[in-house]
Amino acid sequence: MVEKNNYDELITSSDYDKKAAGEKSVDFIEDGMTIGLGSGSTVYWMMKKLSQKVEQGFQVKGIPSSQRTERWAKELHIPLTNFHEVQTLDLSIDGADEIDPHLNLLKGGGGSLVREKIVNTASHYVVIIGEKPKLVSHLGNTAVPVEILPFGWEMTANYISHFGCTPILRQKDGDTFISDNGNYIVDCAFEPISNPKALHDQLKGLVGVVETGLFVNLADTVVISEDQTINIL
Amino acid sequence: MVEKNNYDELITSSDYDKKAAGEKSVDFIEDGMTIGLGSGSTVYWMMKKLSQKVEQGFQVKGIPSSQRTERWAKELHIPLTNFHEVQTLDLSIDGADEIDPHLNLLKGGGGSLVREKIVNTASHYVVIIGEKPKLVSHLGNTAVPVEILPFGWEMTANYISHFGCTPILRQKDGDTFISDNGNYIVDCAFEPISNPKALHDQLKGLVGVVETGLFVNLADTVVISEDQTINIL
Repeated sequence: MVEKNNYDELITSSDYDKKAAGEKSVDFIEDGMTIGLGSGSTVYWMMKKLSQKVEQGFQVKGIPSSQRTERWAKELHIPLTNFHEVQTLDLSIDGADEIDPHLNLLKGGGGSLVREKIVNTASHYVVIIGEKPKLVSHLGNTAVPVEILPFGWEMTANYISHFGCTPILRQKDGDTFISDNGNYIVDCAFEPISNPKALHDQLKGLVGVVETGLFVNLADTVVISEDQTINIL
Repeated sequence: MVEKNNYDELITSSDYDKKAAGEKSVDFIEDGMTIGLGSGSTVYWMMKKLSQKVEQGFQVKGIPSSQRTERWAKELHIPLTNFHEVQTLDLSIDGADEIDPHLNLLKGGGGSLVREKIVNTASHYVVIIGEKPKLVSHLGNTAVPVEILPFGWEMTANYISHFGCTPILRQKDGDTFISDNGNYIVDCAFEPISNPKALHDQLKGLVGVVETGLFVNLADTVVISEDQTINIL
């Protein structure tokens, strides 16, 4: 059984759109593929649908991009592999927090941004799934998550602040949030971001910064659901 | 007592030069300074000399750039602070594996390259200490250490290899070496490096790369000992 996580509850129209986009994206998966399994609630619906096809004999192997996704895959009997066994992935399917008209993404609200980026970068084809409100004219409506090393994090946050934001150290249950890689995340609210690539390059170049939640030139296709009507960009 | 670590044994002329350069660098430390304490055998001699001055009433506070340096500082009664208490450091004193004529450095043989770079970056003034053979015309006689995330490290090493090296995953006592930050290190033997800044920027930009051992534009002064004669560059 999948752990009690409320994702199976469909309440808002957004819930129904996540389910519709997630399920639709399974059409991109072909028998025999090695796939990157993204993170988040929309990916959950993709995996649930995929597990039905696996039960019917569909052959796939997945690499999970978060510890939670790995648990889901095991519970849904989706076979897993790892980067020791495979060098590249045929396809990745992942969610996003924001998607701009150039298919640049803002990701990392869930805290697995680095693993997600490693998996997406290793994939020949990347499908991003979500509901209509994820489409924005410019990234930056929500804060950009930046994963940083715990050692000297105060200094690193200070360097980041010079680029025009006030980094907030992410908390969880009253403690500092720890990423899957053992690092901290600071959430950095910028003005709407005119040049995501330039901002990413500047932040990633800072000592102490491991990765940013700006995904530039990684997505190939976006599957968007609005009132359960699917649009493919 | 300082733990048994053989650094107190002076056998080769190199040992005597490390001691001479380390002790000389203490001249740069002024009463009341907050200082970055680097890593390695030459830094050990700096700290031993500094501890004598502390015993005589000299007021300093140090931030150690490795867990081993932190142990030495405690054993030598050098007062410590951290980046929660101070925003910048007056001075850092650190070693290096190679030093080029522009005072660019190759560092990280000891495995603390990220913390060393964070400490040096936070310092108003950086003094590098070493013996004559550390001076090279071009960096790259020894392999460049690159700290990478354990997740997907095979992919990351593969990306690094595209820049003209064969990354070797560092081992220790038969296991994968783990950095102070919980990451892996790959040692990357390049041809002599014509443009250290460009190579650093390219490697650091890769997803999965945390930091490189190329320290560009960080050193302000180099204290070199040759047959125990000191040269200051």
